[in-house]
Amino acid sequence: MSNYWNSFTRKLDPYVPGEQPKDRKYVKLNTNENPYPPSANVLAAIKDAANDQLRLYPDPNCDELRGKIADHFQLDAEQVFIGNGSDEVLAFSFMTFFSPENPVAFADITYSFYKVYANLCSLSPKIIPLNNDFTLPADAFCEPNGGVVIPNPNAPTGRGLPIESIKYILNANKDQVVIIDEAYIDFGGSTAVPLIKDYPNLLVVRTLSKYSSLAGIRVGFALGQKDLINGLNTVKNSFNSYTIDRLAGAGAIAAIDDDAYYRDMAQKIIATRERTIMQLNAIGFSVIPSQSNFIFASHKTAAAEVIFHALREHGVLVRYFNQPRIDNYLRITIGTDEEMDKLMEALKDILK
Amino acid sequence: MSNYWNSFTRKLDPYVPGEQPKDRKYVKLNTNENPYPPSANVLAAIKDAANDQLRLYPDPNCDELRGKIADHFQLDAEQVFIGNGSDEVLAFSFMTFFSPENPVAFADITYSFYKVYANLCSLSPKIIPLNNDFTLPADAFCEPNGGVVIPNPNAPTGRGLPIESIKYILNANKDQVVIIDEAYIDFGGSTAVPLIKDYPNLLVVRTLSKYSSLAGIRVGFALGQKDLINGLNTVKNSFNSYTIDRLAGAGAIAAIDDDAYYRDMAQKIIATRERTIMQLNAIGFSVIPSQSNFIFASHKTAAAEVIFHALREHGVLVRYFNQPRIDNYLRITIGTDEEMDKLMEALKDILK
Repeated sequence: MSNYWNSFTRKLDPYVPGEQPKDRKYVKLNTNENPYPPSANVLAAIKDAANDQLRLYPDPNCDELRGKIADHFQLDAEQVFIGNGSDEVLAFSFMTFFSPENPVAFADITYSFYKVYANLCSLSPKIIPLNNDFTLPADAFCEPNGGVVIPNPNAPTGRGLPIESIKYILNANKDQVVIIDEAYIDFGGSTAVPLIKDYPNLLVVRTLSKYSSLAGIRVGFALGQKDLINGLNTVKNSFNSYTIDRLAGAGAIAAIDDDAYYRDMAQKIIATRERTIMQLNAIGFSVIPSQSNFIFASHKTAAAEVIFHALREHGVLVRYFNQPRIDNYLRITIGTDEEMDKLMEALKDILK
Repeated sequence: MSNYWNSFTRKLDPYVPGEQPKDRKYVKLNTNENPYPPSANVLAAIKDAANDQLRLYPDPNCDELRGKIADHFQLDAEQVFIGNGSDEVLAFSFMTFFSPENPVAFADITYSFYKVYANLCSLSPKIIPLNNDFTLPADAFCEPNGGVVIPNPNAPTGRGLPIESIKYILNANKDQVVIIDEAYIDFGGSTAVPLIKDYPNLLVVRTLSKYSSLAGIRVGFALGQKDLINGLNTVKNSFNSYTIDRLAGAGAIAAIDDDAYYRDMAQKIIATRERTIMQLNAIGFSVIPSQSNFIFASHKTAAAEVIFHALREHGVLVRYFNQPRIDNYLRITIGTDEEMDKLMEALKDILK
């Protein structure tokens, strides 16, 4: 703290991202990155964009990328907003649509950045406890509130939400924006994108960090009716005109074009996930059903925090959240089959 | 406007960046880009970083780049904050240090994003009129206020501020943060960086967009004492953990290393600027003395707005601001000698 900080800054409680270790090489299953490389066309497009034109500003409106994403989802370009990672898109969304006088609803067990955004925007969150099995109590999101944010599938549990529940929540919240954060949707969930045409209150947020294996280039986007997208652009253009650089833009365009490659990789990840769940069950873990590229697991006798530290000693990083209700769970990213074999070996050694 | 926008968003008045035209090829002297390419090492470093590691998140703290910048300026890494372009750095600075109850002081003729940031942060600006010759009235910045923002050199005038005036303003504002925005400092200005050790209230903001010829990769930074940098990190980490992607980070590191190349390019730009000023004087323009990579010029008989549109017809883009006191001026970026020859040809044709 410093006398130079304003009162707004003094009350902030920043997000803490998963560790990006530099001390040694780990089997890195802690930040839900894709274990497979970006497509060759993406890397080629970026190399191609690394030219003299970097002296020039990028297109502040990302017209080419927006058109590409719009075509992919059968939407208009005016229904697409691009940001510097879905975290920036979410930050702008909180700034644009939610108000201090009306609490914004999100779950007690969810992406922990939501409460940071709420704080950033001086919003009072309305925390909705998940059911005991970590399913979402849709009714609780239908009571009066000033907006809704739900990840589908949820993080860190991995549980997907049926599209009928989303419709139910959208119908009960006609006057507020409902954000469905689909960061992990491509690993088995049901997307809400087809609902956009019928629901002016729906904003779907996506990222290239997981499915498209591009956490390193920071591109996320929001899909929704034009009014919502215009609002996001108004806030963004009051903050930073050029949020997407020429290199990330070029890589993102190629990634959208290369969907067939990414679909195959997602299928591999899903197969590895199911294999891993069976193996974990066999050594005493219970695992929440997952529709994402990570699983949330708890052991019947060994404490999660102990396993977490022991795994680190064994060179395997997973994520542990020391917070009520989930302090006996580990969030484990699905890596390659080889990486998951190393995880299993380490776990067997730890639990023996 | 939409019913879904909150009251904050309804009152915003976004920044309008200079045109990035797509309809035809122009001599582009409208957004103060560097006419020379980034160094070959920068392009090589970016190509090298376009690899499988893009599947992983970047370092959220940009430790390597911060270390490099710190060494370059003989500061500690803890005195460096990195952002997605200096516009993002400035937005975070307004959010961190200024308060609605105390007006932040900036000039009437200055970078027009400042009033957008003030609006974004619900601040009431204290607008200080420049003197008639567009010099800065330092005394007016020493009256009670809640913070100060000054570009040195100023935009769009190009006028530099003597370091003694900056010291004078810093001494009179010990309890508020004084931001010196040095986007254009490397084209002849005197940097305030050596004052950082003595002034805990000084924040110097820089960009790689101009001097380093990297407007296309979006990297800016702030230099100041650790308390100020910690404040910026607190706000940034409440907004977006990973603002700098792997590619921009790699390019920026190479750019800092390649300072000798950029110094040469800056010298060429300065030589072209002085040549252009003489040529403009010869055809009836008066030009404000410039220490930047652009000039601010007014013709003795022809109206700036008329010349602006006629130049566009001739395939030359410059910037015109339709606002009081400067509505008879053109802001002209210094391009290559060949580009400036085309400007002069077009002007001679227009004014004949």
